Amino acid sequence: MKIAVLGTGEVGRRLATKLASLGHEVTMGSRTADNAEAGRWAAEHGGRHGTFANAAAAAELVVNATSGLVSLAALESAGAGNLRGKVIVDVSNGLDFSEGFPPKVVTLDGRSIAEQLQRAFPEARVVKTLNTMNNTIMVDPGRIPGHHNVFLSGDDAAAKAEVSALLRSFGWAGEQIMDLGDLSSALATEQLLPLWLRVHGAVGSAEFNYSIVTA
Amino acid sequence: MKIAVLGTGEVGRRLATKLASLGHEVTMGSRTADNAEAGRWAAEHGGRHGTFANAAAAAELVVNATSGLVSLAALESAGAGNLRGKVIVDVSNGLDFSEGFPPKVVTLDGRSIAEQLQRAFPEARVVKTLNTMNNTIMVDPGRIPGHHNVFLSGDDAAAKAEVSALLRSFGWAGEQIMDLGDLSSALATEQLLPLWLRVHGAVGSAEFNYSIVTA
Repeated sequence: MKIAVLGTGEVGRRLATKLASLGHEVTMGSRTADNAEAGRWAAEHGGRHGTFANAAAAAELVVNATSGLVSLAALESAGAGNLRGKVIVDVSNGLDFSEGFPPKVVTLDGRSIAEQLQRAFPEARVVKTLNTMNNTIMVDPGRIPGHHNVFLSGDDAAAKAEVSALLRSFGWAGEQIMDLGDLSSALATEQLLPLWLRVHGAVGSAEFNYSIVTA
Repeated sequence: MKIAVLGTGEVGRRLATKLASLGHEVTMGSRTADNAEAGRWAAEHGGRHGTFANAAAAAELVVNATSGLVSLAALESAGAGNLRGKVIVDVSNGLDFSEGFPPKVVTLDGRSIAEQLQRAFPEARVVKTLNTMNNTIMVDPGRIPGHHNVFLSGDDAAAKAEVSALLRSFGWAGEQIMDLGDLSSALATEQLLPLWLRVHGAVGSAEFNYSIVTA
């Protein structure tokens, strides 16, 4: 599949590398065409790179791995026409550290970042997932033993099925993928980040994940 | 131990019943001395009941099981003098359903309910815990098989140790009790409620809990 990964940070590079290793044709998108990080990644992993618009235009599926604080701007830069009809896998989180620790969870107009993206691009099909864990675990769930979960939120059932298949290709088992419902449920997972940071402090590692254990 | 349970709802009654069954002398507190629910509970379980102030005055330890929307008012009614030096086990959550589902998590001035209570009653020793699960599991963690967690937040180490001992008497094992740090970490657990509601919808039951699984 032709996939755009928007964002050149650790999360974007991790996802892009995994997707390329699975045989997808990956273009890493960034604000400018000459982003050094994107260039290095493309050279090392046989991928492409370009602007957000270049990447989105070429793609059948778009991964938003930009910071939630700038995701709306990044997708505007990608362009509505380049996103039309496409699944957007939104793994973003918005954390504002400007007032120190703990950071504030940034939502836009009190809604999740995912919902704001969906509103801004009504013809795209936004699915929120993977935003509740360290990037190492996103693409290699076997690092954590036993049962643990990845959440899925979205308004489009077919888009969620497509993202679920992508998660399975990363190593997630069906029983680990929990569909939380429509896209309004994305706020619940975006608000999980402060707990993630506290648990990170308590266990002294980012190599953990949440598991829902039922009776 | 002499324990006040403030709040006559399902959570308050569940905790009061467990505490009474463990041999503690429990007084259930409510806004008025003649609360019918509190009267019924006291008659059935050999406990006492009275106003918030009556309950707190008699207690060595206070459990805040009121709705987070009214907790500050409830503790003001209990009276600062009756709370001085005492551990307050705060199990409250503030959910505002006035605009429908999903509810908004209510924080006070952007801070957790627990922190607001601590600020209002600086001589009390507030410990946040048990607010991330159904009340059935609070007092009977064995209902959920295997590893799962209860979180602890508070500024007073001795108070946290005391609450940890209380949790053990409920059946929680030491490795299930995760200390998240100072009381500012309570916001992270109060913000977990929207996810709880979505998971409740996804699994179709309140009989689940969160587990932190490490590599």
